Amino acid sequence: MSNSIKNTNLEDTTICQVGIIVRDIERSMEAFCRVFGLPRPEVIEMPGYERVKTTYRGGPSEATAKLAFFDMGQVQLELIEPDGKPSVWQEFLDEHGEGVHHLGFQVADTGRVVEFLAGEGIGVAQQGLYGDLSGQYTYMDSAAALGVVVELLESFGG
Amino acid sequence: MSNSIKNTNLEDTTICQVGIIVRDIERSMEAFCRVFGLPRPEVIEMPGYERVKTTYRGGPSEATAKLAFFDMGQVQLELIEPDGKPSVWQEFLDEHGEGVHHLGFQVADTGRVVEFLAGEGIGVAQQGLYGDLSGQYTYMDSAAALGVVVELLESFGG
Repeated sequence: MSNSIKNTNLEDTTICQVGIIVRDIERSMEAFCRVFGLPRPEVIEMPGYERVKTTYRGGPSEATAKLAFFDMGQVQLELIEPDGKPSVWQEFLDEHGEGVHHLGFQVADTGRVVEFLAGEGIGVAQQGLYGDLSGQYTYMDSAAALGVVVELLESFGG
Repeated sequence: MSNSIKNTNLEDTTICQVGIIVRDIERSMEAFCRVFGLPRPEVIEMPGYERVKTTYRGGPSEATAKLAFFDMGQVQLELIEPDGKPSVWQEFLDEHGEGVHHLGFQVADTGRVVEFLAGEGIGVAQQGLYGDLSGQYTYMDSAAALGVVVELLESFGG
């Protein structure tokens, strides 16, 4: 057995997103705007299964969420208010309360990275298309191994 | 009352550090190295009160931690294994288990930012010097307002 480290496990180890689960996105947005002096972002209502094909733990899911994004340097901070239906977001809120749910990484080939992580015992927890269908996100079940969910973000068309 | 947003609340809204509390830093480091293909960092044992003058919720604290740092683009990922003594780290582990504890921001003047945040109802939870005495960190009690602890990082001498 070799202990050598591959450099190609994820294509890019730059953290590009931090996702925080909140109970009330309007209240949390207001607090972030005040504390960080940032402009108020738009709240985006994620579409349902028919458009973004959300799968949660292997099955189709009607779960949606309200989202808001702040640019904080290289990192995009995402606030997520789950809608109460079963999802990784609602799971986290029920188990931990509000807090940082995931770290996001850009990938060019989700399938390859998912296959690599499966070999490390880390499966897919939830997957879906972006609301504008320009890409897809994949939440990996990495909290037990890494203390945090890894999100793979793939933009279609490069 | 004005709703205008100040741009000087924190001097820099660039997230420069993500801190994850773990139970076993050797096990977590190994998992991060494997998943991200990163070289194994050194484990740093934080010194005690006599050197770094840790204060926790207003009083001196002998709490220490084992630390390890990974560079992941602009963001430094910090793993923290608390030592069981009362600290913000141990608080988090006891209440939430492993997970993302804080987002770190560089500041030039900790006192000014602490004063601003006090006006927002956010107090200091823990403070101390860096192990090499080159700066100081301050954990703000911001989890109720923001869903995450904000850490102020000040390097002495600019």
